[in-house]
Amino acid sequence: MKFKDLKVGDSNVELYALVIDCKTKQTVNQTPYFGLTISDGDDQADARIWTVNIVNTLKDKAIIPGEVYKFVVKVNDYAGKNQIIIGQVEDVDPNVVDLSSFYKSAPITEEELRKEIKGYIQQISNPVLKKIVVDLIGKNADKYFRHQAAITMHHNYRSGLAYHVYSMLKLAKQMVENYPSLNQDLLYSGILIHDIGKTVEITSDKTPSYSLEGNLLGHIVIGLTMLAEVVKENGFERTEESIALEHMIAAHHGELEYGSPKEPMIAEAVALYLIDLTDSKLTGITEIVSKTEKGTYTTPVPTLGRKALYVPKID
Amino acid sequence: MKFKDLKVGDSNVELYALVIDCKTKQTVNQTPYFGLTISDGDDQADARIWTVNIVNTLKDKAIIPGEVYKFVVKVNDYAGKNQIIIGQVEDVDPNVVDLSSFYKSAPITEEELRKEIKGYIQQISNPVLKKIVVDLIGKNADKYFRHQAAITMHHNYRSGLAYHVYSMLKLAKQMVENYPSLNQDLLYSGILIHDIGKTVEITSDKTPSYSLEGNLLGHIVIGLTMLAEVVKENGFERTEESIALEHMIAAHHGELEYGSPKEPMIAEAVALYLIDLTDSKLTGITEIVSKTEKGTYTTPVPTLGRKALYVPKID
Amino acid sequence: MKFKDLKVGDSNVELYALVIDCKTKQTVNQTPYFGLTISDGDDQADARIWTVNIVNTLKDKAIIPGEVYKFVVKVNDYAGKNQIIIGQVEDVDPNVVDLSSFYKSAPITEEELRKEIKGYIQQISNPVLKKIVVDLIGKNADKYFRHQAAITMHHNYRSGLAYHVYSMLKLAKQMVENYPSLNQDLLYSGILIHDIGKTVEITSDKTPSYSLEGNLLGHIVIGLTMLAEVVKENGFERTEESIALEHMIAAHHGELEYGSPKEPMIAEAVALYLIDLTDSKLTGITEIVSKTEKGTYTTPVPTLGRKALYVPKID
Amino acid sequence: MKFKDLKVGDSNVELYALVIDCKTKQTVNQTPYFGLTISDGDDQADARIWTVNIVNTLKDKAIIPGEVYKFVVKVNDYAGKNQIIIGQVEDVDPNVVDLSSFYKSAPITEEELRKEIKGYIQQISNPVLKKIVVDLIGKNADKYFRHQAAITMHHNYRSGLAYHVYSMLKLAKQMVENYPSLNQDLLYSGILIHDIGKTVEITSDKTPSYSLEGNLLGHIVIGLTMLAEVVKENGFERTEESIALEHMIAAHHGELEYGSPKEPMIAEAVALYLIDLTDSKLTGITEIVSKTEKGTYTTPVPTLGRKALYVPKID
Amino acid sequence: MKFKDLKVGDSNVELYALVIDCKTKQTVNQTPYFGLTISDGDDQADARIWTVNIVNTLKDKAIIPGEVYKFVVKVNDYAGKNQIIIGQVEDVDPNVVDLSSFYKSAPITEEELRKEIKGYIQQISNPVLKKIVVDLIGKNADKYFRHQAAITMHHNYRSGLAYHVYSMLKLAKQMVENYPSLNQDLLYSGILIHDIGKTVEITSDKTPSYSLEGNLLGHIVIGLTMLAEVVKENGFERTEESIALEHMIAAHHGELEYGSPKEPMIAEAVALYLIDLTDSKLTGITEIVSKTEKGTYTTPVPTLGRKALYVPKID
Amino acid sequence: MKFKDLKVGDSNVELYALVIDCKTKQTVNQTPYFGLTISDGDDQADARIWTVNIVNTLKDKAIIPGEVYKFVVKVNDYAGKNQIIIGQVEDVDPNVVDLSSFYKSAPITEEELRKEIKGYIQQISNPVLKKIVVDLIGKNADKYFRHQAAITMHHNYRSGLAYHVYSMLKLAKQMVENYPSLNQDLLYSGILIHDIGKTVEITSDKTPSYSLEGNLLGHIVIGLTMLAEVVKENGFERTEESIALEHMIAAHHGELEYGSPKEPMIAEAVALYLIDLTDSKLTGITEIVSKTEKGTYTTPVPTLGRKALYVPKID
Repeated sequence: MKFKDLKVGDSNVELYALVIDCKTKQTVNQTPYFGLTISDGDDQADARIWTVNIVNTLKDKAIIPGEVYKFVVKVNDYAGKNQIIIGQVEDVDPNVVDLSSFYKSAPITEEELRKEIKGYIQQISNPVLKKIVVDLIGKNADKYFRHQAAITMHHNYRSGLAYHVYSMLKLAKQMVENYPSLNQDLLYSGILIHDIGKTVEITSDKTPSYSLEGNLLGHIVIGLTMLAEVVKENGFERTEESIALEHMIAAHHGELEYGSPKEPMIAEAVALYLIDLTDSKLTGITEIVSKTEKGTYTTPVPTLGRKALYVPKID
Repeated sequence: MKFKDLKVGDSNVELYALVIDCKTKQTVNQTPYFGLTISDGDDQADARIWTVNIVNTLKDKAIIPGEVYKFVVKVNDYAGKNQIIIGQVEDVDPNVVDLSSFYKSAPITEEELRKEIKGYIQQISNPVLKKIVVDLIGKNADKYFRHQAAITMHHNYRSGLAYHVYSMLKLAKQMVENYPSLNQDLLYSGILIHDIGKTVEITSDKTPSYSLEGNLLGHIVIGLTMLAEVVKENGFERTEESIALEHMIAAHHGELEYGSPKEPMIAEAVALYLIDLTDSKLTGITEIVSKTEKGTYTTPVPTLGRKALYVPKID
Repeated sequence: MKFKDLKVGDSNVELYALVIDCKTKQTVNQTPYFGLTISDGDDQADARIWTVNIVNTLKDKAIIPGEVYKFVVKVNDYAGKNQIIIGQVEDVDPNVVDLSSFYKSAPITEEELRKEIKGYIQQISNPVLKKIVVDLIGKNADKYFRHQAAITMHHNYRSGLAYHVYSMLKLAKQMVENYPSLNQDLLYSGILIHDIGKTVEITSDKTPSYSLEGNLLGHIVIGLTMLAEVVKENGFERTEESIALEHMIAAHHGELEYGSPKEPMIAEAVALYLIDLTDSKLTGITEIVSKTEKGTYTTPVPTLGRKALYVPKID
Repeated sequence: MKFKDLKVGDSNVELYALVIDCKTKQTVNQTPYFGLTISDGDDQADARIWTVNIVNTLKDKAIIPGEVYKFVVKVNDYAGKNQIIIGQVEDVDPNVVDLSSFYKSAPITEEELRKEIKGYIQQISNPVLKKIVVDLIGKNADKYFRHQAAITMHHNYRSGLAYHVYSMLKLAKQMVENYPSLNQDLLYSGILIHDIGKTVEITSDKTPSYSLEGNLLGHIVIGLTMLAEVVKENGFERTEESIALEHMIAAHHGELEYGSPKEPMIAEAVALYLIDLTDSKLTGITEIVSKTEKGTYTTPVPTLGRKALYVPKID
Repeated sequence: MKFKDLKVGDSNVELYALVIDCKTKQTVNQTPYFGLTISDGDDQADARIWTVNIVNTLKDKAIIPGEVYKFVVKVNDYAGKNQIIIGQVEDVDPNVVDLSSFYKSAPITEEELRKEIKGYIQQISNPVLKKIVVDLIGKNADKYFRHQAAITMHHNYRSGLAYHVYSMLKLAKQMVENYPSLNQDLLYSGILIHDIGKTVEITSDKTPSYSLEGNLLGHIVIGLTMLAEVVKENGFERTEESIALEHMIAAHHGELEYGSPKEPMIAEAVALYLIDLTDSKLTGITEIVSKTEKGTYTTPVPTLGRKALYVPKID
Repeated sequence: MKFKDLKVGDSNVELYALVIDCKTKQTVNQTPYFGLTISDGDDQADARIWTVNIVNTLKDKAIIPGEVYKFVVKVNDYAGKNQIIIGQVEDVDPNVVDLSSFYKSAPITEEELRKEIKGYIQQISNPVLKKIVVDLIGKNADKYFRHQAAITMHHNYRSGLAYHVYSMLKLAKQMVENYPSLNQDLLYSGILIHDIGKTVEITSDKTPSYSLEGNLLGHIVIGLTMLAEVVKENGFERTEESIALEHMIAAHHGELEYGSPKEPMIAEAVALYLIDLTDSKLTGITEIVSKTEKGTYTTPVPTLGRKALYVPKID
């Protein structure tokens, strides 16, 4: 049962949903209740639990954001909108329900992403670049292939980070053909590791938020530190390859005012910046345009400074 | 004979060269002479004519920039550098000498460009978009396929404009695959005509400079006027297609401060801007990096605000 | 009866008012009602219709923003303020009521504006400039003399566009006297047509909003297209006059960041920009200052970035 | 005899000229000579004195910049240009030669300016404003009516400051008619004294340069100090009039980044800023455009950030 | 009794508190009541007076912001928070209650500040500088030692202005030692008077707000006027000392965009700017960090553009 | 013998000087010669070697920039200035001549700096912070105490980096007293290592220039990498101390546009930024002001965007 199928007057409806947020609140006369934001994988909705002690039967005696539960609900009308009232809540057996369907994910599966990205890594022939890339991704593979690329801006879904890298690599392939002075090994390597710091900047794949390092250092500085460690372990200090990769991570935001401590000073760093800019903007746009009717304006687009786009009526 | 093969002490050398510039000057004791900048197709050099009346035998009684001549020269040493002294000059028979080898041109021939771009036009299925594109390019085909894309920044050679369009279309193809909400017809059409105003902004293919319209209006405004004419002739006024294309020409510099009177407000206009930005920068970079030794810095790159790049020693 | 004469406890008051906005709303217990914003020509007020079916007797079975109606109302007290409750509503016979008094208008009538502006056009002696101006204004005369100059910023009332032009022409007359190198014909022509695109950018004179072309192209690009059509019809392409006028429309916002694709590059374009800037700011200020008591601060001024002004106590 | 009438080979020519600059220099073999820049009122030229002791007969035993002298010269050819060699120099009797013709001056005479400006002052009816204006201009009348308005930007000639004020007052008259909420007394007063600090910022009318106060404080701060003195002498402290005038001087550059410590916050201060901006730009433009042939570009215009303008071929 | 000791159900509690704000409001059924913001010196709280006529027994028949009163209150629960209901109010005898404890004050007393600052003044040996400083502070001593340094940003408490000066002088002492070319007399003098205009910009020490001069001129312009008066009274016009001090007041915001009409152009003015910047930022930070638990983020810091800081868990 | 003691006509003068630069040049008739820039420790001068083979007796058969030589010279007059002609050149025995006197150095000796800085390190009581600081400085001590702090801006002399740190620590001491919420251990530690990356960014103490890492990464990124290594060696990863120090290095330029990938987000990082800003500016100013006569303007100051300062005539 999806939220969009609920209607006023429904009662005793069984509903599986992911809890995004759960806060304790109080009515005017000081009675506590829970206000929840829940997701069925497609849409989000608000819901209320008036009888707070129904959570005592749960294994954690509480509702944990990031987890999926089975709810029994009725639907009231509140100011012309559906209001979901939760009467019962149960833990969910992961063997029975496909939990992954409640989390928004990249358009292709984690396995496919692992296979595609591995394919690009194998095309790197320079041994120093390849070793650095293999080690950095290998040490952080779980997070690398599951984390989002951002909290709210773009690729903000499971495996968003890896999908962003994969999408960039496809653009890079065409660029290397168009602009033959670009070094393919270096450009692919730079793309593969440019956002490695996000595995630490963003806390987890279930309830992503910024870590302390994320707030105080940001993914560029974190990534530089992670790269330095791998460089040292392999004895690659002060090689042209390690300096070039450090530069590419440092410069990939393109301009000082976007948080890069250096502007791109090698050709492949310029290319990396342009591919990253292109993929961030166009992925964010595609997600929103694909949900918008032709001949109307979109909701504000986060990667365009919250401007709205018009979708022309053109076939 | 190329300039790089000349050495001090050479005399009576026959040399075919394109004249870039020819100015009348005067020695300290008021004797007039000519100071020339000439090109052998690869390099440029300075040269002098001390006996100015040798030009009287030419058909124009003068040396015309943009033309190729046959020179008889000797080579002196001037402060440690070669100084080319021209003793005789003759008009060149275009049937005997391949003049085109003296003009810098796009990496592929005009014929190939015409064929490749035609192929992309044929992929446009929307009839309104296709008619507009065919008419606009058709009316201006000679200039469209021969003009430079800019005077000094990038693609500043014969057919540079068409080569820029072709290079952008190849990137667009990959983008449409990556971001399926992009309308291929609209994106291809926008790319094909976005710089159409440059056929008027830049005066000619031989000695390119900015026209009065170029200086006072710029290629965006000129292009909008050219598009308006074709739209009116076909009765396409106020169709979604014509408005979208007008918007794409208007917005293709991406930001107001770069001369776009509107920022991109449809997805394909954002994509057009990003592809144009990418191709301008990376073409300018490729031309310079390909002439630079690994492990050294390039000369200043015009499309990067005259910053120099480092070319890493990485195979 | 004006709004400012209503007082709590009034009932069965007949009131003629323009509807600015009418939205369907719902009470806490889901009863629908209408929330209106209405205007008596001087002031705006909120009003409510609790019995929604009273609109069924209207010819459109609905209340249409931009129209004037006769209302029968009573006045309640709501949190210390007047609340207008509408009990009856009737269509208005335009023969009986002077509808124009409900729309805010320019300080002088449309007829006077037509006469004054015609006077300035007759002072243009250059035949090319005069023909372009006469054709452009002639083709769009109804909108040109009735439209607002903007939705919210300045001259946002009936005939605001023409009044803005008239006010600018008066300043221009003094400028031509002060700065004799200015070409009066060119400056007058540029002022007369600089905002011609607003006749398409803004949809109508009754309920003005931005058209699709307004949003995607803006009045500068629209105006350039309209001018190009008139230039072509008269065979004036590539004359100094047509290029100069195109430049003046393109450059009249003065700086790239304000949406001009070119900065002013002829003296009359600089003058046009300065006169437009001056009239926009000082008209917006005059409207607000004239309603403000001396010794106090104004409400935020839209044309000054919403800063408030102080009105000194000086006679 | 004007410079433009001199030709190579002339000798024993008597020439009256203003000395702009005179520097001691040295030939390669250490012989001292003088390098001068001189002006005939229309044009400037370089000149040389090879025999330095000819200045010993002058009353100051030296050539003083800012003074007019009688020279006896011959004209040599130097690299194709006239070179003026001075053989004799004499002091000039001011009763015999009209020295004022050697200084560039405002288009109307100082007497006319005094009369016109007096006329505007008499239109001020508010007694506090009038007293402040009369005192401030009265105390500094000589400098006020003789100084330039700037060293290089605009109105950089004798009485330029007063001419700038006069030109602004004419614009203000039309503005007060257009925008009736403007207080004429306050606007006229503000214009009359807004640049009063320039009488101290710029050192003299003969060889103008910036004083120490000019460099460290600027004419806005200097003007505020001069106003404060007059306000105190009259006991007008903390009147609305004195505060408004202080604000108008402080805010007349319009934006913080142009050196105004406050942005305009009263209507008349906004008007003053716009009139000052307009007169500065259009006067600077008029001076240059009037010397430029139609159909060509001007030299760089200082008040437009050194951009060149195009002067259209339009009658 | 402090606010933090109140709990729901308390009644007949006697409470001394400073009134920050008192507004007349109205219940839904139009009954008037008072909504107050009160302070016990440490914390602020909201309170209500339902029975408005209890104020009639006060000497002013009204509650005056900036005054301390004795209240008799009860404490209700309102949506989970304490709600203070005032039942009685009495004037306070200043002989009985130490009113100063209700106003937030600088960390050291006014007497200590007077003594410390006097000590620094005595170290100034240049007689002109010393006389100017002594006169300027002497004439405005009451306000100088009691006013806040700002309404909301930093040092926004009693004697905040003098404490800011004192704190800056301590930094200056170390700077003069570090950078021996700084003139100690000039730097101390500049610090002592740089904010003198705030004694007029901010209206009073009890209920501080911006005066008309504050809004229209700002403390830099006001300070320059105050300085000019003292300079004139002493006959110090156009001395190096007076020009330097005028420059230091004018330039102490460091950049045009922060309201300085001149950027620092003497070494001591640069030092003054840097010391002022440092003390403003670090005082604002210290006040907030000292109330924040280690390992958490602060509330937004006004002097850092409302960014939050992290307070590390480091001993 | 110092340069300032040389006069025209001197010959056979023995002179010890440091070679800053030595370039091969050519006379008009192609004879090679050497053009040198040499320093006597106080001043720089140009010199020439007309007989190039006199260098063949040197141990390197060439003159090496960064080395000190003994020259035998005569002094000619060239356009009114001294021209040093070198007739003989010899290698210098470092046992005989105190070479260090030819290099510009910090105001106090390297030994004193080592001792002072050691004293501050000993005041750090937090063991994690102390260990990091001791290790980082210990590993790089030679460079840390000998390198310049910059190539051209400020502290551009031997031990300039350490002197900059020492000067900052003295300011920090006063700040910790003024603003008690600052953690002294953290602030001292941050100051001590904030520029550690300059030991790699700048190549050497003799002929300093930017290394490849300096150009591509900058001292912030290099410093972060060096810190990461020490953190890892000690097992301090992800401690509050290591994250805080990483943040302080990253943020010490204060704003993104000055190359900091993060703006300061902890109080001590704000303090570090302000102290660094203050010391850079005031040291650069002190060096120049101390050489400038009172009552005149300085040469352009590099740390003030090349503005000139005025030095008032105030005792």
